[in-house]
Amino acid sequence: MNHESVAVFGLGSMGFGIAKSTLSAGLKAYGFDINADAVEQFQNIGGSHGTIENIAHEITCAVIVVLNAPQTEMVMFGDNGIVPKMQAGSVIIACATVPPSFAKGLAKRCAEFGIHYLDAPISGGAAKAASGALTIMASGSKDAFTSARPTLNAISEKVFELGDEAGAGSAMKAVNQLLAGVHIATMAEAMTFGMTQGVTPEKFMEVIPQCAGTSWMLENRGPHIVDGDYAPRSSINIWPKDLGIVLDIAKSAGFGAPIAAAAMQQFLAAAGSGLGWEDDAAVAKVYARNANITLPESK
Amino acid sequence: MNHESVAVFGLGSMGFGIAKSTLSAGLKAYGFDINADAVEQFQNIGGSHGTIENIAHEITCAVIVVLNAPQTEMVMFGDNGIVPKMQAGSVIIACATVPPSFAKGLAKRCAEFGIHYLDAPISGGAAKAASGALTIMASGSKDAFTSARPTLNAISEKVFELGDEAGAGSAMKAVNQLLAGVHIATMAEAMTFGMTQGVTPEKFMEVIPQCAGTSWMLENRGPHIVDGDYAPRSSINIWPKDLGIVLDIAKSAGFGAPIAAAAMQQFLAAAGSGLGWEDDAAVAKVYARNANITLPESK
Repeated sequence: MNHESVAVFGLGSMGFGIAKSTLSAGLKAYGFDINADAVEQFQNIGGSHGTIENIAHEITCAVIVVLNAPQTEMVMFGDNGIVPKMQAGSVIIACATVPPSFAKGLAKRCAEFGIHYLDAPISGGAAKAASGALTIMASGSKDAFTSARPTLNAISEKVFELGDEAGAGSAMKAVNQLLAGVHIATMAEAMTFGMTQGVTPEKFMEVIPQCAGTSWMLENRGPHIVDGDYAPRSSINIWPKDLGIVLDIAKSAGFGAPIAAAAMQQFLAAAGSGLGWEDDAAVAKVYARNANITLPESK
Repeated sequence: MNHESVAVFGLGSMGFGIAKSTLSAGLKAYGFDINADAVEQFQNIGGSHGTIENIAHEITCAVIVVLNAPQTEMVMFGDNGIVPKMQAGSVIIACATVPPSFAKGLAKRCAEFGIHYLDAPISGGAAKAASGALTIMASGSKDAFTSARPTLNAISEKVFELGDEAGAGSAMKAVNQLLAGVHIATMAEAMTFGMTQGVTPEKFMEVIPQCAGTSWMLENRGPHIVDGDYAPRSSINIWPKDLGIVLDIAKSAGFGAPIAAAAMQQFLAAAGSGLGWEDDAAVAKVYARNANITLPESK
C-alpha cells in the first residue's frame, strides 16, 4: 500500500490549492474536475495522470472539495463513484459544507465498503489552501484520522479534532458559517449606514477595527468595499447555500435563527439582482441601491 | 484659570472610572450624581467637595457620562444646568451615546455661552474607564479639542479625531453600536444553535475564536455564557437604547437596517422578559427558552 498517493476531487480555487499543497508536501496526487482545463493545469504543475478506474485501487486517500452535498455524494457513490473501487482501510476526506446528518449518512455507507470517512469542512480561503495552511473542523473515527494524517498534514495548519463521529465537523462549520455570513452582511449594513451619517468607508475601516464592533470578516471584507474591488475571493453565491444549510438544520431542530434569516435575505437580494458571482462584499450594493448611496469606485 | 479642575457628571460604572482616572492623572476633580453614595465614595478616594453653584466658575472642563440624551441635556441646560454658569472658553466633553443631530444642537447652544462642546462617545467598558484607557470617538472644533486635551489625556488611551463638527463622533459611535449589538446577539444565536447540533459552549469558544466567524464581542461575551455568569459588565438594557438610536437615525436617513432590526427584537425580548439588568450575554437566554435548551450553570 502506497501511503503517499492521493486524489483530489474538485479543482476550483479551494480544491486546486489543496491539490497543489499535497504536491508541495511530496505526495503523489491525482486531480479530477469536470473542467478539463483545471485538470490539465494541475498536471502541468506535477499532478499525476490517470482515470478513476485506474487509480482508485492505488490511492489511500480521496479529498473531496466540491460545492455541496449532492456533488459530494456523486463523487463518492455516483455512476463512476470512487468509494466502491477504493481499497479497504483507505479514507475519504469530505470538505464541502454539508448538513451534519448528511455527513453521518455518508460515513455509514463508506463503512459498508470498509472505507473510513473524515467529516472535514475547511475554512481559510483560496490563498491558505494553496499554501497548505487551511483550518479543518474534523470529526471521525480514530482510524479515519490516522489514515488521513499525511494528507491533513500536507494541506492544513490547524486541525480541530471534534470527536469520533462524522457530523460534528459539519456542525461546527455550520456554526462558523452562521457567524461569518451574518458578520459580512452586518459589515455592509454598518458601513453603508455610516455613509448616511457622514462616515466614509475609509474612516470606518480606520476606526472600527480598533473598536469593540470589529469582526474577522469586517477586517477581511471591508477593504474590498473601500477599494471598489468585487473580484470574487469568495462569492455571494456561497451564502444562500451555506446559510440555507444553517437555516434548514436549525428548522429541523426547532431552532429559530432570526439574525441569520435576516442576513440570508440580504444575500438572496444580492444573488437575485445579478451579483451572485461577485465577491461577497458586494452585499453592500443591496444596501447602497436601497438607500441611494454611491459606493467607492474601483481604483 | 485653573487648567486642572474638572467635574464629572454621572458616577455610574463608566463615570466613576473616568472620575477616578482624572484623579490618577493629578487633576482636581468634582463628582456629581443623583446617587449620594457614589458622590461620597468618590470623595473618599480623593474627589473634591462642592456644589454646582460653587464650582462651575472654577472648572475648565465638565465630563458628562450620563445614560442618554435627555439626561445630558438636563445636566447642561436643566434647572441647575452647568453650561450657563461655566467660564467662557471652558469645555463640555459629552460621552453618552446620542443621535448626531442632538449633539449638533447642544454644540450650538453651548456656543451661545462661549462654551466649547466635544462630541465624545466612549468605548471600552468599566475596567478601561477606571484605568484611563478608554477609546473616544471625538469631534468638535480645534478649540474644543485644545480645552479638552488634559482631561482626554487623563481618561483615554486612544482618541479618534473625527472632524471639527459635533455629530461625527456620535455617528461613528452609532456605527460601532450597530455592529457590537448585532455581534453579541449573533454570538448568542450561533452558540445556542450549536448546542442543538451537539457543539458545546466550551467547544464553541475553543474553536470559533480561531476561525473566520469570530468577532471582538464573541470573544469578550462568549465566556460569560460558558461560565453561566450574567453579572452585568454591560447590561441588556443598553441595547434597546443604543440600537434604538441606530434605527431611529437610520429611519430618518431612509436607510433600512434589517439585521440591526432583527438583533433589536432579541434584546427587546430579553428586556421584556425581565433580563434587563443582567449582562448583555443573557440575550442567549431568549434563544435557550425558545428552543428548550439548558445553558451552562454558574460555576
